Amino acid sequence: METEITKTECTSNLKNVIDALYVLNGKWKLPIVLSLVNSPKRFNEIMKDVEGISPKILAQELKHLEQNELVVRNVYATTPVSIVYEASPYSETLKDVLRTLSDWGAGHRKKIIG
Amino acid sequence: METEITKTECTSNLKNVIDALYVLNGKWKLPIVLSLVNSPKRFNEIMKDVEGISPKILAQELKHLEQNELVVRNVYATTPVSIVYEASPYSETLKDVLRTLSDWGAGHRKKIIG
Repeated sequence: METEITKTECTSNLKNVIDALYVLNGKWKLPIVLSLVNSPKRFNEIMKDVEGISPKILAQELKHLEQNELVVRNVYATTPVSIVYEASPYSETLKDVLRTLSDWGAGHRKKIIG
Repeated sequence: METEITKTECTSNLKNVIDALYVLNGKWKLPIVLSLVNSPKRFNEIMKDVEGISPKILAQELKHLEQNELVVRNVYATTPVSIVYEASPYSETLKDVLRTLSDWGAGHRKKIIG
């Protein structure tokens, strides 16, 4: 079923993947997005969900994801103020990336465990 | 068309994605694999293809990819010895991940450029 692709297409694919990883760089951004796709959460709830991340890195990653319009930070004027992060509508575009990565992670774990 | 998924499935997806990114961590591994999927290459040819990577990091990433059985290092007993890296048959399993990332990168670039 595979069609041959030209050298230009190869190079363009490579550039696209490099661009995607420039934005999604690191091991935490996609797990954070996935956690928020599952449901909106406060900072501490994300910390519990995404095991192993430090508060400093989580704060940094959330800021980066907000700048890239993948996460929305909602501030509610309660006392004390509540801040809830949610996946933006744009983050829906990552659905296929997350699905293929999840499938690959599951398969790779099986391969390693044997 | 989307079916509801349970909380357990959510958590399992998250764990799969974290596992996948643990192996594929960083912005270079997937571009290197993609470059080698396009055609087997020598070290210097990969350097040219994957723009911006340093020799030190490329050597490190190739070793990691070999350990994870995604890249094969072939040594030919010519004079001088030639070393050619190629994508392993197992790296085929990354095809869908690479495709979805490439699509997303292309779409995100369009969104940013406007």
